[in-house]
Amino acid sequence: MTDEAMERLLERAGELMDSHVYPLEETVMAKGWEGSADERAAARAAVKAAGLWAPQMPEEYGGMGLPFRPHAQLSTVLGRSTFGHYAFGCQAPDAGNMEVLLELGTEAQKEQWLRPLAAGEIRSCFSMTEPDRAGSNPTWMETRAELDGDEWVVDGHKWFTSSADGAAFAIVMAVTEPEGPAHARASMIIVPTDAPGFEHVRRISIMGDEGGGWASHSEVRYHSVRVPKENLIGGRGQGFLIAQKRLGPGRIHHCMRWIGICERAFDLMCKRAVAREIAPGKPLATRQMVQDFIAESRAEIDAARLYVEHVADVIDQKGTHAARTEISCIKFFVANILQKVLDRAIQVHGALGITDDLPLSHLFRHERGARIYDGPDEVHKASVARRILRGYGLELGSIG
Amino acid sequence: MTDEAMERLLERAGELMDSHVYPLEETVMAKGWEGSADERAAARAAVKAAGLWAPQMPEEYGGMGLPFRPHAQLSTVLGRSTFGHYAFGCQAPDAGNMEVLLELGTEAQKEQWLRPLAAGEIRSCFSMTEPDRAGSNPTWMETRAELDGDEWVVDGHKWFTSSADGAAFAIVMAVTEPEGPAHARASMIIVPTDAPGFEHVRRISIMGDEGGGWASHSEVRYHSVRVPKENLIGGRGQGFLIAQKRLGPGRIHHCMRWIGICERAFDLMCKRAVAREIAPGKPLATRQMVQDFIAESRAEIDAARLYVEHVADVIDQKGTHAARTEISCIKFFVANILQKVLDRAIQVHGALGITDDLPLSHLFRHERGARIYDGPDEVHKASVARRILRGYGLELGSIG
Amino acid sequence: MTDEAMERLLERAGELMDSHVYPLEETVMAKGWEGSADERAAARAAVKAAGLWAPQMPEEYGGMGLPFRPHAQLSTVLGRSTFGHYAFGCQAPDAGNMEVLLELGTEAQKEQWLRPLAAGEIRSCFSMTEPDRAGSNPTWMETRAELDGDEWVVDGHKWFTSSADGAAFAIVMAVTEPEGPAHARASMIIVPTDAPGFEHVRRISIMGDEGGGWASHSEVRYHSVRVPKENLIGGRGQGFLIAQKRLGPGRIHHCMRWIGICERAFDLMCKRAVAREIAPGKPLATRQMVQDFIAESRAEIDAARLYVEHVADVIDQKGTHAARTEISCIKFFVANILQKVLDRAIQVHGALGITDDLPLSHLFRHERGARIYDGPDEVHKASVARRILRGYGLELGSIG
Amino acid sequence: MTDEAMERLLERAGELMDSHVYPLEETVMAKGWEGSADERAAARAAVKAAGLWAPQMPEEYGGMGLPFRPHAQLSTVLGRSTFGHYAFGCQAPDAGNMEVLLELGTEAQKEQWLRPLAAGEIRSCFSMTEPDRAGSNPTWMETRAELDGDEWVVDGHKWFTSSADGAAFAIVMAVTEPEGPAHARASMIIVPTDAPGFEHVRRISIMGDEGGGWASHSEVRYHSVRVPKENLIGGRGQGFLIAQKRLGPGRIHHCMRWIGICERAFDLMCKRAVAREIAPGKPLATRQMVQDFIAESRAEIDAARLYVEHVADVIDQKGTHAARTEISCIKFFVANILQKVLDRAIQVHGALGITDDLPLSHLFRHERGARIYDGPDEVHKASVARRILRGYGLELGSIG
Repeated sequence: MTDEAMERLLERAGELMDSHVYPLEETVMAKGWEGSADERAAARAAVKAAGLWAPQMPEEYGGMGLPFRPHAQLSTVLGRSTFGHYAFGCQAPDAGNMEVLLELGTEAQKEQWLRPLAAGEIRSCFSMTEPDRAGSNPTWMETRAELDGDEWVVDGHKWFTSSADGAAFAIVMAVTEPEGPAHARASMIIVPTDAPGFEHVRRISIMGDEGGGWASHSEVRYHSVRVPKENLIGGRGQGFLIAQKRLGPGRIHHCMRWIGICERAFDLMCKRAVAREIAPGKPLATRQMVQDFIAESRAEIDAARLYVEHVADVIDQKGTHAARTEISCIKFFVANILQKVLDRAIQVHGALGITDDLPLSHLFRHERGARIYDGPDEVHKASVARRILRGYGLELGSIG
Repeated sequence: MTDEAMERLLERAGELMDSHVYPLEETVMAKGWEGSADERAAARAAVKAAGLWAPQMPEEYGGMGLPFRPHAQLSTVLGRSTFGHYAFGCQAPDAGNMEVLLELGTEAQKEQWLRPLAAGEIRSCFSMTEPDRAGSNPTWMETRAELDGDEWVVDGHKWFTSSADGAAFAIVMAVTEPEGPAHARASMIIVPTDAPGFEHVRRISIMGDEGGGWASHSEVRYHSVRVPKENLIGGRGQGFLIAQKRLGPGRIHHCMRWIGICERAFDLMCKRAVAREIAPGKPLATRQMVQDFIAESRAEIDAARLYVEHVADVIDQKGTHAARTEISCIKFFVANILQKVLDRAIQVHGALGITDDLPLSHLFRHERGARIYDGPDEVHKASVARRILRGYGLELGSIG
Repeated sequence: MTDEAMERLLERAGELMDSHVYPLEETVMAKGWEGSADERAAARAAVKAAGLWAPQMPEEYGGMGLPFRPHAQLSTVLGRSTFGHYAFGCQAPDAGNMEVLLELGTEAQKEQWLRPLAAGEIRSCFSMTEPDRAGSNPTWMETRAELDGDEWVVDGHKWFTSSADGAAFAIVMAVTEPEGPAHARASMIIVPTDAPGFEHVRRISIMGDEGGGWASHSEVRYHSVRVPKENLIGGRGQGFLIAQKRLGPGRIHHCMRWIGICERAFDLMCKRAVAREIAPGKPLATRQMVQDFIAESRAEIDAARLYVEHVADVIDQKGTHAARTEISCIKFFVANILQKVLDRAIQVHGALGITDDLPLSHLFRHERGARIYDGPDEVHKASVARRILRGYGLELGSIG
Repeated sequence: MTDEAMERLLERAGELMDSHVYPLEETVMAKGWEGSADERAAARAAVKAAGLWAPQMPEEYGGMGLPFRPHAQLSTVLGRSTFGHYAFGCQAPDAGNMEVLLELGTEAQKEQWLRPLAAGEIRSCFSMTEPDRAGSNPTWMETRAELDGDEWVVDGHKWFTSSADGAAFAIVMAVTEPEGPAHARASMIIVPTDAPGFEHVRRISIMGDEGGGWASHSEVRYHSVRVPKENLIGGRGQGFLIAQKRLGPGRIHHCMRWIGICERAFDLMCKRAVAREIAPGKPLATRQMVQDFIAESRAEIDAARLYVEHVADVIDQKGTHAARTEISCIKFFVANILQKVLDRAIQVHGALGITDDLPLSHLFRHERGARIYDGPDEVHKASVARRILRGYGLELGSIG
């Protein structure tokens, strides 16, 4: 993809953001998820009409077939709004699920689940995190699936199963080989949400609201849910391995999305600094403490973006596995910058900044999770150090 | 007050917190403000029965008559819950309004407004901040009150009028002397909320929820509201001066309350570190990064408390005016520690920390305002520097 | 001691600092330690004449007999100059050695070593840290002392033996009970520096200079040095215990001294901000980023001082052992504030700040060690967390 | 230049660092600048023999003719030692002076000054900063040059004239058009250091040592120094403009050099973490707080490098002027990372870290200036904000 073509793509995406995505923010805020179905559909239709639907998917699935790096760059534009990725058909967790199914799904799985998912006709969720087991140790899991005849019987308790509300199916991580080695115990199994025994317990209220539909995170129980044995993805015991593959690029996408958020917050901060007067003719921007916020933020955002783009290149060239250390680094590095930039943007807005009249409050609250989900900072840091120190001849266990 | 007596007081307060206040948190969360009227009343009744009601008020108003310092210390216990001060009858903004009326109110004002307020029979609000004028420059205000015969006619637009929802009256800051010197333009006027022209526009949604009743912050419009001229508090043009007096101790109370919150968060953090295992038999507390959080937080909270207690002593001995620099210092110093401690407590809780299943999310969200309300960090820092530099022979204007 | 008496004491100390101590800084810088012997002696004589000599020592040893808290307060005044404590006869490591001898020394030891030390006639050093063993684990030590007849034979390699250059004797930590439990292996033994086998290897060059005399830190070797068995301090195997007792208050003294340094740096920063113009008539102080430095520093220094004074009170009331957690907290808390304040003061001075024309460079360089000596931040933090978590029912080993 | 060629170049440079440059550190430390003349010459000869001399200079001047970006990358390798750039003939301030002469020098100036400078036969200095005028306002300068017949007569007082000790000539910034507009008052004039009236006052002692020769910073006075009018560089009043051009790339070179230092410190930190035991068999690296340092540093260094490389590309493509904002951003961004990484590396080394036995102390001390020289952080931040806010329609004066 030429630089110029990329430029044009980003521009067209930006126009769609302006015309269809930003307006969704107020609509969904006012009408809720269900109530804004028409407007959401209209936004997606506009994206499809513009030929920018599902940028990461192959053309045979109705996508643009973008390689990783350009997709990542596009992500920074979509990330400026909570609904950007959704409107473009590349929202988590569906995007990750599509990726897994595309690479490892059987033809039948692809026809039944991937095709409508890629088309935006159904939604899905990924059911891994458990309330009673530390997510920082993904090999320690209580959900079980046992093969009973031709069916998997799934029993377990999950939460932070994002977008479960309204999803057609879940990809569930469950221990199928309890006696296997730590990293080869779990498998991924497709569980339709209308299967008997699938209980959607609640949308968890997070930082002040429980959201709705795609924009929610649920607690789910699996009460001896039976699904055909063909619903296994990849091989038995490969769940952890697939999850690693799935999460690596997912973290990059989060990072790029966060950079989009940073740019949005930065822009709001600058506008406010210029527009708000603290005395007649004296805008906030004349205050050096505000200038400090602006300069620090600019440098941090730019450093973050270049870092993430670089890691996207490494993934394109050497694959996710080779880029593990870099991926962990950007995960905590960018998440922390995100939080600082949002915090400064709020501070510059004063009382207005903490109201829900602006998108900043929503972003600040819901991205507090950025330093936690997909591995808390502390876990990533420890694993970065472990891998670096291996290069110095020291082997440390994963839980020191 | 002897150290021993203080000790006993804090203990009794702690017991009431355990038996009546902490349980209110879940009740109000579940039933809303209105829906939890009975439980709230029961908690207040228990406090009254225990003789700890309105600790800061003189006994003739049904209070304990505590001097400033012991009251401040008690505040750190009450601050552990959002509802502590409310249950003990010393919640903002009522406490500040009581103080103003006690010191400056006429006998008639005291009978009509202070007595029922002190008894907890009515609530009140303080209407100062305006959406269109930077709160950082409190001399720049648009609300006007003009004397028309025997009545003040108040016109203006306010927001962040905390607890206006359900309040019996507001103390309104309005410009009455538009031609006066900057700090002598505004006056304080009592406006009953049932006066024609008083419009409660909305409870502002802040960081994810609009709260309710006492626990809310409103936008209010005054459409030529008429009140008797006797509703003026103190003299004409003294509004700013009274506000300074009112806000000084108010900032100390916020600081003490924040320390209570810090202690609560610290306690939750330690409990979680001990209880949550990351591998069988390996609690989170074995992680040095968590230990780092614990040690840093302990030192910061203790330093903060000693600092605030010291400033309370200075106020007791020399008055609020003499302690302005110190008050500004603790305002930003403690607010920043509060935010760090809450942030760490959430981080140690992982995904659970960002849910509304724990009080941490509510505190984290709603205390983001701590660095903004009653003067943003930046304003306090600039005024601290200005006063210090005056000691070095330099006079800087208030808006440099 | 009344507040007023304290006030007067601090004032008189301040006058001596102005008249005799600050001038020493340039003198020692210009002439070196040896070369400035006369001026140093004159400063000490002035202090003695004023009756402020050895504030921490009992009157029978020529001191003022100050309790801990007032002495700690006095320390913040002396700390404003590198030579304050020296001039007043309460400099480390002599002060700590005096304390140990006073409490645990035999009458003979007191006559021979304590009396001339207290009088400032000789100097001493404390020889504990070893280059090959982590100071963070003080139970792990290589220096040995064996009883051979009536003599201890000491063999070992030490460094950071402060003030060894020119000292009359060292108190040496050496393992005498290699088979004892970890905390009961070492003993403290007095070793005259003219004993055969005592080798002063070098004054270690630290952060750019090796200093001289009292103001230096040496590498020392003990080659089968023989001393009478009466040179043992306290009992066999009590070295670690005594060291703890010695280091506890020593850390408070460091903290108070650091606060003195902070005040010095703060004062220089403010003076510079007022005096230095960035354009005609525009002093640096008009810059908000500088105001930020000033306000942050003021708040941090005040919080630090109140914290340290509080811990001094706890020591006065409950002893060092009971205050271990608090002592560790202030050790890292104040050391970090010290570094920040020095850093800001330098930044405000620009190029001048990094020259040796001002005391800031010396303080910045040599107090980088503050976060390392007497236990690095990380060790103190871990032990604070350990003790706190014990209160939550968790026992963690000292090296997790 | 192909990636592969670049790789090979970096490798060869690394080998020369190992064989000739790192050993210089101890030599110069032990023998001083003058005393190590032979070893320094040998290192430079080895670099010349390897064909890596003066990488930034055209081949006709004996250099490699590297474009900006590859030169910047090479800089990160050279930066690992204080003497890297010196050994390779591209050290500041000579490199900047060469650049100016190459671009703007007359043929005669090139023959007389540039050729021997590029060959490493002479050294030079750049005399701009003044003790009595804030460097943050480069248009405010006291040094004057007046044309008297065919000669410039230069009068002034400068300091931080780096490498003046032993330099053959200085490029002096002096006001020649006192009535001109602020940015067109100064000119650049070549002043041989043997000209009568050139007074080398002293090597300023900075952070503990005054260095020597190239590695020193001097105070210089110009007492009516007369030089031919042909010594003017560029046109009259163009000094500021040329300085901007000179300093822009210079800042990039500093940044790249700092990254080299970071890598050196990082490497030392990791080695120490692995080698130093805190208990038998328990290396420091097992401590999570150390792992935290390692991971944070890795992420920060990588982000910094990618950022600087990006800005080098922008300069290659659009020139220095277009990259002003980015250059200011990396200047403060990287300088702060440098300080953090050095600080952590020292902390991990404990007492050893603050000694001059390792290069860390020297780097820590002398790079404290990084946040000051070539514009303090605060000045760069303010100018970044100013330029960004211009994009939002606000014009702020340069000294707000």
